[in-house]
Amino acid sequence: MGGNSSAPDRTGTSRRGFLSAGLAAGTTLAAGALAARGAAASDTAITELPDWTRYLGEGVATRPYGHPSEFESGVVRRDVPWLTASPESSVSFTPLHDLDGIITPNGLCFERHHAGIAEIDPSKHRLMVNGLVEKPLVFTMDDLKRFPRENRVYFLECAANSGMEWRGAQLNGCQYTHGMVHCVMYTGVPLKHILNEAGLRTNAAWVMPEGADAAAMTRSVPLQKAMDDCLVAFKMNGEALRPEQGYPLRLVVPGWEGNMWVKWLRRIEVGDEPWHTREETSKYTDLLENGKARRFTWVMDAKSVITSPSPQAPLNHRSGATVVSGLAWSGNGRIARVDVSLDGGRNWRPARLDGPVLPRAVSRFYCEFDWDGSDLLLQSRATDETGYVQPSKEELRAVRGVNSIYHNNGIQTWHVRSNGEVENVEVS
Amino acid sequence: MGGNSSAPDRTGTSRRGFLSAGLAAGTTLAAGALAARGAAASDTAITELPDWTRYLGEGVATRPYGHPSEFESGVVRRDVPWLTASPESSVSFTPLHDLDGIITPNGLCFERHHAGIAEIDPSKHRLMVNGLVEKPLVFTMDDLKRFPRENRVYFLECAANSGMEWRGAQLNGCQYTHGMVHCVMYTGVPLKHILNEAGLRTNAAWVMPEGADAAAMTRSVPLQKAMDDCLVAFKMNGEALRPEQGYPLRLVVPGWEGNMWVKWLRRIEVGDEPWHTREETSKYTDLLENGKARRFTWVMDAKSVITSPSPQAPLNHRSGATVVSGLAWSGNGRIARVDVSLDGGRNWRPARLDGPVLPRAVSRFYCEFDWDGSDLLLQSRATDETGYVQPSKEELRAVRGVNSIYHNNGIQTWHVRSNGEVENVEVS
Repeated sequence: MGGNSSAPDRTGTSRRGFLSAGLAAGTTLAAGALAARGAAASDTAITELPDWTRYLGEGVATRPYGHPSEFESGVVRRDVPWLTASPESSVSFTPLHDLDGIITPNGLCFERHHAGIAEIDPSKHRLMVNGLVEKPLVFTMDDLKRFPRENRVYFLECAANSGMEWRGAQLNGCQYTHGMVHCVMYTGVPLKHILNEAGLRTNAAWVMPEGADAAAMTRSVPLQKAMDDCLVAFKMNGEALRPEQGYPLRLVVPGWEGNMWVKWLRRIEVGDEPWHTREETSKYTDLLENGKARRFTWVMDAKSVITSPSPQAPLNHRSGATVVSGLAWSGNGRIARVDVSLDGGRNWRPARLDGPVLPRAVSRFYCEFDWDGSDLLLQSRATDETGYVQPSKEELRAVRGVNSIYHNNGIQTWHVRSNGEVENVEVS
Repeated sequence: MGGNSSAPDRTGTSRRGFLSAGLAAGTTLAAGALAARGAAASDTAITELPDWTRYLGEGVATRPYGHPSEFESGVVRRDVPWLTASPESSVSFTPLHDLDGIITPNGLCFERHHAGIAEIDPSKHRLMVNGLVEKPLVFTMDDLKRFPRENRVYFLECAANSGMEWRGAQLNGCQYTHGMVHCVMYTGVPLKHILNEAGLRTNAAWVMPEGADAAAMTRSVPLQKAMDDCLVAFKMNGEALRPEQGYPLRLVVPGWEGNMWVKWLRRIEVGDEPWHTREETSKYTDLLENGKARRFTWVMDAKSVITSPSPQAPLNHRSGATVVSGLAWSGNGRIARVDVSLDGGRNWRPARLDGPVLPRAVSRFYCEFDWDGSDLLLQSRATDETGYVQPSKEELRAVRGVNSIYHNNGIQTWHVRSNGEVENVEVS
């Protein structure tokens, strides 16, 4: 696989022609179920008006905090019960196949807990800064809101996202293969303001955020990153953080693996060397083929996945105008381009990035083509602004073996059958 | 009022000094409620660990679609019962004072209905295009998802937002004075693709979107706008539109008044002149002082409001480092700058725009200052990229009188008292 040819492949067509070719089916539907005023409607149509046109709907006062339509009840985070020992130390997955754009709604952001969801009373919550600082400080939530704030859209990806795919195609749906990622707008205080307020000692080189949950999650973060772009966030997508995302405070570590984004943040210790905590020794290290482990593999490299069509989002037509939609992201900055293959990597065509393309946020890409109805092997390949190109799974395995569950950013393949069904496969 | 002086005013201070001056209070809090490992903690602290540190929290499987913390139960849309005759033809308001950033979470987007919330089964919903087209078309939801899509962040503001303020300060809270605005990322099909698919006749000049609710909302939209940037949207913030926002389809008319963004969209008629429907004759016209009415006042002019502090978000400290946070938006493009006054418009200082500044989206601004604890008269004034400057309420009234309830984009004043309480006032 691989190659970077721009030659037209078997399903290639010009953009100009595909709409009239592919959408003819849409025009054959009767207009009778629609309203009466249109040219295509008839007297009969009036008696067929749906209930939602004939009767008043529910009023405003009954829904102070809104919920999705009951017809969207299947659009939910899902877990994989056999994957983890208990729901308190487990994970749920973002339904990427049902979503579009670049913002993940708060109710659908994947969760990963080590000791369940801490339900914190914000009036009793404190953030302490201690260690190699001039004056240790303790802040209330109100105190923190007196620092200058920033608003940034960032993806958060678990290091174990796609981890089951190291040893072959195992999970049938991008919710499960790639759903440990979400992307929201955070509002928070740059960590540098808080550290500067405490006053860094000259030998300060690392910080250790600590969570207030029963797992007391801890990771070592280099001071340079802490002073660069980390945020102590209290809002996501405009409202307070959700409990499962660290309410009332979480550390945002842009582009770096999700476990470092400590939730329910209660303490930042400043030190001169890393702490070698459980979560950076026993866990979140990458066991290589030779038995050695990579450590401090913080950055999430460029990655992409086609979210539709995908195993949970089959095609409902059999040929013609077809839209491929997907996500690409890189912990090293902006996505520069995405290419899509319809034939398992033999030929590639540039995808269209649409919507804001922000550093360390997901970007949405589309590829529109005229499907001839034959089998497809869909792939996407991201390139970030550093020039890094998303590798194939084979290329990754050649370097890293298959012992780890972390940092699998290999190219994903979906087999689309002529009946529209989609399956997770590997090509070689 | 007015003026554009950049001279320092009574509460002016340099940015460098305000943190250490203002945040000293934060350091006096005891660290005892925090965890045991910090330098400032003691043995006593261990026995005071909160329950959320001592016990496992709830697991992942119980929350397939997430909700805010119970401590945020007051962050909701609210209605004003005396304002409208029934909940089915009413409005709820976005809690702007509780939000930050530029994205409104879907559950908190204000609602305005004329006949309640249509609860539509998307499998039975159709979009018809008829009138001055070569071939009338009817689309299913699946059909529409075969057109190319776009993702754009746009504000939506009701023309009546701030309408009660024409005749003086009346509603005490920015949720009520300015809460008929929200801002989300839409995913949808450019309307031009759908119209081109139907084929416009040479005399086509207007389109009329029509809703499928019992009010069958209709407005006339110039073809030029329809072909420029209108979207037929099916997602907001990544997921399906909420029922109260038009599920499964709404027209997005960027920068123009909210009633034109027809919800539950079932039909687009193409014509050669406007239809003069009820909603553009009896309603949504602006009655002037001389008895004449302005019509087709589509664009929402540049506007801003300070969301915190505000009557529902008082200051919880009595002096020192203070953050003013607010929103600015313009139907004519990007926000170019925002100025903030602490003294009712005598002196102005530039605010800091933070986060993405996108055309026809809200922008977030901040102004950090060292509060001396005396009374404040807070104002914000937006300037958009066309050079348009948000007017004072007096300037608006001089031109438009006080007969209308629509298109009030005047400068808002909050009176902050020394005890931190905030009131809606007018200055002259």
